[in-house]
Amino acid sequence: MRRIASVLISVATMTGVAALMSPAFGNADEAAPPWVTEKPAGYRDWKWISSAHEEGNLNSLGAVLGNPVAVKAFRAGTIPFPDGTMIAALHYSAVPSDENNKIFGKAQSIVPGPPTNVQFMIKDSKKYGATGGWGFGHFNANGKPVDAAFMKPCFACHAQFKAQDLVFTQYAP
Amino acid sequence: MRRIASVLISVATMTGVAALMSPAFGNADEAAPPWVTEKPAGYRDWKWISSAHEEGNLNSLGAVLGNPVAVKAFRAGTIPFPDGTMIAALHYSAVPSDENNKIFGKAQSIVPGPPTNVQFMIKDSKKYGATGGWGFGHFNANGKPVDAAFMKPCFACHAQFKAQDLVFTQYAP
Repeated sequence: MRRIASVLISVATMTGVAALMSPAFGNADEAAPPWVTEKPAGYRDWKWISSAHEEGNLNSLGAVLGNPVAVKAFRAGTIPFPDGTMIAALHYSAVPSDENNKIFGKAQSIVPGPPTNVQFMIKDSKKYGATGGWGFGHFNANGKPVDAAFMKPCFACHAQFKAQDLVFTQYAP
Repeated sequence: MRRIASVLISVATMTGVAALMSPAFGNADEAAPPWVTEKPAGYRDWKWISSAHEEGNLNSLGAVLGNPVAVKAFRAGTIPFPDGTMIAALHYSAVPSDENNKIFGKAQSIVPGPPTNVQFMIKDSKKYGATGGWGFGHFNANGKPVDAAFMKPCFACHAQFKAQDLVFTQYAP
């Protein structure tokens, strides 16, 4: 009951979503679990875990950063990650660097362009017990979090990485 | 004269290169300027500046990190970078992530594979006055610095980015 109340409080903070998720419009069992609705302070100062380039439709280039708890766990190979772990994935449009390509004499350099979104994974085994202990978050370039429907697939997809405690990224030494 | 002495001291620390660069074997004017022969301590803990994917022969994916002086200058857009700026470029082979691609259902995810090298730019307008105030460094995956011949093109190439004080990378917000 306390969990359901907490879900509703979390959902009620998002304009327009409250009505959609209200028990009057659906089954309480289908209520979305809590997710991350505020960006953790200071995440841009966290340490670098790794980079990734996603081609195709995503066309994304960025970096994964971690707070001190995350960095310690990544470096030690600690699985599962302990409570307090916070991981940020900073995404940008992947764009060619005309400046670099001119120097290299060929089109080979791809760099971060305009920011697209920032995603978070925050470990709190109690608060986020319904999603493997992880709270997922996604904030568009305008800083706003997305809605419940957008957040729904996060857990199902990450759950496929059970051996890595649901974390896609591996530490770049 | 003090500069030349400093060059020779720096060069003498690299086995095999000392003889090559000695005045007995060439003109003192052709002596290589000093470069970075020791990795700065703690660079893996520096903050993330940006990422880059270099395709083609380089086939490199990695990140650029900066010490506190560098991060402050990048964020403020300070050009030229002040003395004390230290920038590290961590390079890895760009490899497909089979794990990620399986989840995405297509080949689109490129991540850092084995480390290839780490490069540095250290600003010291006095020590590195002959190369725009920047000391360049390149360390292979085995941790060893490269030789004078390898280092020679660094300045000439970076000098093309005069408007950015010889720095290729731009800060990812």
